[in-house]
Amino acid sequence: MRYNKFLTILFFLLINFNLYSQSSDSIDLKYYQQIVDNIIKYGLERGKAYEMLQGLTSIGPRLSGSTQCAQAIAWVKEQMISLGFDNVYTQSVMVPRWERGTVEEAHILDGGEKLSICALGGSIATPEEGITGDIIEVHSVDELHVLKNQVKGKIVFWNKLMDKSKFNQGSAYGEAAFQRTQGAIEAARFGGIASISRSLTIAEDDIPHTGVMYYNDSIPKIPAAAISTKSADYLSKKLKENSHLKVNIKLSCRILPDTVSANVIGELRGIEKPNEIIIVGGHIDSWDKGTGAHDDASGCIHAIEALRIIKELNLKPKRTLRAVMFVNEENGLRGGKQYAENILAKEKHILALESDAGGFTPRGFGVTADSATLEKIKKLERFLKPIDVDRITQGGGGVDISPLGKLGVPTAGLRVDGHKYFDYHHSDNDTIDKVHPRELELGAIAIAIFVYLIAEFGL
Amino acid sequence: MRYNKFLTILFFLLINFNLYSQSSDSIDLKYYQQIVDNIIKYGLERGKAYEMLQGLTSIGPRLSGSTQCAQAIAWVKEQMISLGFDNVYTQSVMVPRWERGTVEEAHILDGGEKLSICALGGSIATPEEGITGDIIEVHSVDELHVLKNQVKGKIVFWNKLMDKSKFNQGSAYGEAAFQRTQGAIEAARFGGIASISRSLTIAEDDIPHTGVMYYNDSIPKIPAAAISTKSADYLSKKLKENSHLKVNIKLSCRILPDTVSANVIGELRGIEKPNEIIIVGGHIDSWDKGTGAHDDASGCIHAIEALRIIKELNLKPKRTLRAVMFVNEENGLRGGKQYAENILAKEKHILALESDAGGFTPRGFGVTADSATLEKIKKLERFLKPIDVDRITQGGGGVDISPLGKLGVPTAGLRVDGHKYFDYHHSDNDTIDKVHPRELELGAIAIAIFVYLIAEFGL
Repeated sequence: MRYNKFLTILFFLLINFNLYSQSSDSIDLKYYQQIVDNIIKYGLERGKAYEMLQGLTSIGPRLSGSTQCAQAIAWVKEQMISLGFDNVYTQSVMVPRWERGTVEEAHILDGGEKLSICALGGSIATPEEGITGDIIEVHSVDELHVLKNQVKGKIVFWNKLMDKSKFNQGSAYGEAAFQRTQGAIEAARFGGIASISRSLTIAEDDIPHTGVMYYNDSIPKIPAAAISTKSADYLSKKLKENSHLKVNIKLSCRILPDTVSANVIGELRGIEKPNEIIIVGGHIDSWDKGTGAHDDASGCIHAIEALRIIKELNLKPKRTLRAVMFVNEENGLRGGKQYAENILAKEKHILALESDAGGFTPRGFGVTADSATLEKIKKLERFLKPIDVDRITQGGGGVDISPLGKLGVPTAGLRVDGHKYFDYHHSDNDTIDKVHPRELELGAIAIAIFVYLIAEFGL
Repeated sequence: MRYNKFLTILFFLLINFNLYSQSSDSIDLKYYQQIVDNIIKYGLERGKAYEMLQGLTSIGPRLSGSTQCAQAIAWVKEQMISLGFDNVYTQSVMVPRWERGTVEEAHILDGGEKLSICALGGSIATPEEGITGDIIEVHSVDELHVLKNQVKGKIVFWNKLMDKSKFNQGSAYGEAAFQRTQGAIEAARFGGIASISRSLTIAEDDIPHTGVMYYNDSIPKIPAAAISTKSADYLSKKLKENSHLKVNIKLSCRILPDTVSANVIGELRGIEKPNEIIIVGGHIDSWDKGTGAHDDASGCIHAIEALRIIKELNLKPKRTLRAVMFVNEENGLRGGKQYAENILAKEKHILALESDAGGFTPRGFGVTADSATLEKIKKLERFLKPIDVDRITQGGGGVDISPLGKLGVPTAGLRVDGHKYFDYHHSDNDTIDKVHPRELELGAIAIAIFVYLIAEFGL
């Protein structure tokens, strides 16, 4: 550090600097600016995010309750211990368990063309010989309700495209996700025998994208699969030529009893107000396609690397920075709920941050907080500007920290350049070769700056 | 367009709206906001940037004076004509011509390990049997000057790393580029027999990166090559073990006489002030590694697609938008100079914009202009914010438009998220699979918004 430390310390003894006050003294700004510069330089030069991502993703996909998920939890715990984090421990969580099995096939009868599908997470299997039926194509629940008398005995084919004209692809995803999450319920409501839904991506390829689906206990359970965008387009075209097309679907997935898993927790204990906690989170589970490199191994590594940088620079935050790797984000949220139940009553959480948008170039932070708190956080923009991550706006968080948000804790989410996110999301494509070392590291650097400064100044 | 057009037109008859005035009327803002929304929606939904990029890059690399460069120029001209641009023509330019040839090899003698190298653009060849010599490793011109008595008869190995701790990789590139551009001159000054320089990238791989190198007529010409970062590290390690390592280099490149090539020009003629010109440029030539997909086929497509969108939406700009595909950016700047000489005296150029930073997600515009002009251009930020391209800052342009800049024309460059740029730059890796359709299209959309509004309001 080139800045004259002695003078700064003296200055701090005299004046209680407050970042949030209207006028900020230039010496103090320089002091913190120097720390921020050091974080950036250290991260870009000596970052370990990508190396750690290799370690975590080499374990494989990490579906809740799987052997690999348990291995990943052990790997994270060991990593945190070896990095010298404080209070490293696992917190037990009961998680649902589902297995894909080895068969997921579909083809059009007679013509025999194969369709590229995969089981949706939580689906029951088909009989071994599969389910065969006519196809009825729909694009919305409303359309299905209009056609309800034609549904019985058929396979419902949901073919709602994600709206690529929307700049915010997360919002386009939100609008189209019903076909995956609710498709089996709505189809079965009118006698449908299976549900296949268009993959939630604007990429045009042969890779199906999985994800969670739900059943309603009062409606029969039917098998549910996702179909690749190319196969969906092909099937739709074939249906226009022949509306009595028959398709056979085979799935061998199964639901197993709940099992014990865990959140993994490690801290840098605050030296002045250790009982004020700032969470830096990601989720350790992933879908069982690809290796969940972006979703959410990158978020886990962001959190660990951010704390590692702060520790290696010997920055000693005033408040406690706590890395939490939640389990079961993808198909249950059990980890997030468990954490909120176990911990919150005993401790004061001033902010919960999650990175769950992928390991792409960071652009800012979305914050869900009252306007006074947001205004304080926006004072950090000047420190994040040198790395172009200074877009701090109202609205943001993460699924895992939503139970904390409901209890009144301000939440925040790392915003990244997400145009490729849904190309990979929940599919065989979500692998480490899609993550760029420098972009990943910048996410960790941005988080380190953000949480270190909040640990200094509180909220 | 949903906005009541009649009312707007009426309004325009009554009030001379000025974007740059202190108070902007909300109705006018809504009118332009609606146009911007339409540009975004149309581009994202019906964009053709990637399809055109496929067309252009399928021709192959486009080194100035090559057959493929001529084919690319013809392709662009045909494209502009078929899109209905006004005044499409080519402007003749004499360009230097250099050919790589088929041989570019290096290996360490005795041990025999192969090094991954490529000829630098403009280099002379070695004799057929190659050049063999001891290696002297240096990291700066200053260091070479200190060691000048040890250089004679040796191959100078420039091994200056790009500074990865710098957020701005363009600046790190600038600091390290001397070894490629000046290496042969400095080495030969003290009797060096060849120059090999570390590839200008922070990627650790076996791909050498080419680029322009210079000779000085008063100093002997020696062959010059780039070496991949992995080979450079390997060679450096071996030199530490044995300082008398001998290396053999073979290059079969050659310099040919200058030949005729061309800039390609097409316009959307302004309907009110056609003689006020706004240039939207890229360079049609590329290096002969990869297919120049980012550098700079993407910039050319950005320009064409931006004008296509404006035309398809029937926006009829008040001032003239002129797409210029300059030739010979990479090894001569002849196209940019020719354009400035031919055209400028006759026409008023109010802005020259270039896209030459790759087809990545756009983030803003760098502008080189007086502060009053910059302030006007910054008024566009609000229109670019919906697509996160609102970072308009002082300083920017492009090599091809630098001759216009010298003549006083304000210049601007599209800023993109460039963390991967130097992974691909001037190498076999610069191919279309590294360009994302949506990110590329967003660059064209950003340019369309930027230049359309400047065509409306002038500068």
